[in-house]
Amino acid sequence: MSILVVGSTALDSIKTPTAENPRLLGGSASHAGVAASFFAPVNLVGVVGQDFPKKYLELYRRHQIDLQGLQILPGKTFHWAGEYEANMNNRRTLATELGVFETFNPTLPEAYRKTPYVLLANIAPALQSHVLDQMMKPKFVVADTMDLWLNIALPDLLKLIKRVDGFVLNDSEAQQLTKTDNLLAALKKIHQLGPKYVIIKQGSHGSILSSPKGLFLCPAYPLAKVVDPTGAGDSFVGGLMGYLAQAKGSIDANIRQAMVHGSVTASFCCEGFGLTATTKIKRADILKRVKELEKIVRF
Amino acid sequence: MSILVVGSTALDSIKTPTAENPRLLGGSASHAGVAASFFAPVNLVGVVGQDFPKKYLELYRRHQIDLQGLQILPGKTFHWAGEYEANMNNRRTLATELGVFETFNPTLPEAYRKTPYVLLANIAPALQSHVLDQMMKPKFVVADTMDLWLNIALPDLLKLIKRVDGFVLNDSEAQQLTKTDNLLAALKKIHQLGPKYVIIKQGSHGSILSSPKGLFLCPAYPLAKVVDPTGAGDSFVGGLMGYLAQAKGSIDANIRQAMVHGSVTASFCCEGFGLTATTKIKRADILKRVKELEKIVRF
Repeated sequence: MSILVVGSTALDSIKTPTAENPRLLGGSASHAGVAASFFAPVNLVGVVGQDFPKKYLELYRRHQIDLQGLQILPGKTFHWAGEYEANMNNRRTLATELGVFETFNPTLPEAYRKTPYVLLANIAPALQSHVLDQMMKPKFVVADTMDLWLNIALPDLLKLIKRVDGFVLNDSEAQQLTKTDNLLAALKKIHQLGPKYVIIKQGSHGSILSSPKGLFLCPAYPLAKVVDPTGAGDSFVGGLMGYLAQAKGSIDANIRQAMVHGSVTASFCCEGFGLTATTKIKRADILKRVKELEKIVRF
Repeated sequence: MSILVVGSTALDSIKTPTAENPRLLGGSASHAGVAASFFAPVNLVGVVGQDFPKKYLELYRRHQIDLQGLQILPGKTFHWAGEYEANMNNRRTLATELGVFETFNPTLPEAYRKTPYVLLANIAPALQSHVLDQMMKPKFVVADTMDLWLNIALPDLLKLIKRVDGFVLNDSEAQQLTKTDNLLAALKKIHQLGPKYVIIKQGSHGSILSSPKGLFLCPAYPLAKVVDPTGAGDSFVGGLMGYLAQAKGSIDANIRQAMVHGSVTASFCCEGFGLTATTKIKRADILKRVKELEKIVRF
């Protein structure tokens, strides 16, 4: 089965203490879409400007990502510039140029409306809701978000959360949303906002799921070197949804394996700038690391 | 088989945003000793003053902790006072009164010298070495430490690390010792200092072992409420050594289960001030949580 992925499609300029990489392909939909593509066909919904490099359209196509839903409009592609500190945990936004993203109105191609798996990757919650409005009986809908929307669009976000099956956010966002720094308390409060599945991401510490079948602690694959964590969270949720879309059986039966596959996909993402490492791997590389991870956590 | 535990035996005054608890039983040897006692007989090595409450001697005895190695000297028991912030992660020392600890010279009773498992819980590394000097062919020696010794007794600590089978420290201490914030790189550097088994503790995120059989990610049991994390690290390593001492087979065959049992013992420690929660449980309570944790991490 296929997945619809809506989110940002951007050019990212990423600075770390050791390197600078201008205008790499980035954005939540790019990272999540490529990650999902290792497992299932992806229908991409996004917008880019006429400056968007052709090589990145080729990159999407190489990953069998359907581009009917990618609008190419007069103007500039969304550009984000950021800088990481030495420990790769703290990042600082240097510039945000919205470009064509400012007036983005995601209208779905007819062929997309029956996509069974819907990933509302990080983007303004009003746009996530607008996409969801156009879907016809999706099987499983997951939304991701970021602190920005908690700060400037909380009412929109709360409306969206009510309508999704799964909601994904990171630990500091969960703390901000629920006013508690206890993970179990935060998970409980987020369930009360609507979703049956709540996942709190904890960066290199993995993630935790609360679901009808209880809790699941999902490990992160330990890396000897983190080059650039940008997009790791998007890769995680993309891989997760991709895995679910191709798996037989219920969501409950598959969601743990789906998270582990998403987690491993995210580990590759961290090993290169932008999508450079993720686009070099094959599905077999992910499966190999999943097997390794199984050995590392077994007791 | 039995375990020798040397470390601090103290009275802790612990303040949190919601409560204040003066002069509770504390110290690394108390926490580690009680934790180990759920699994194996413990020989305690420490020092207290004549002000040390009789009820705490009774508490040790209830846990079948042998007190031949506990010196009771004229003077005051070591007293530590500290305050936790709301998130329970940052703590501030308010007072440290060494008392009889200042001139502590751990001389082992003859009966202790052949104890097969030796836990050098957190205490000055010169004292840890001095205890190790008195042991006769121990089977497995593990040392824990704290940032204080990295700051004021690094040469002593490095001498000690060379002589132990296992070394345990937390993530910020590992970063300080190895000058890297990458866990895998830190583990590698610490192996080069001597120990075959290196464990980095990550608080509520669990811990990671590097051993001849590879890496192991040990989960932490998720808690709905953390009352007081003081002693959790000591309980972890105490439970770990206790489990190893009673397990049949090699260290490699048992160390993962040992870490999980230590991790769960530490979870109880966090649920009460000082040792109040840990001393209310039985071994069966630990085993029950281990089973739950197995379910929470299975995929």
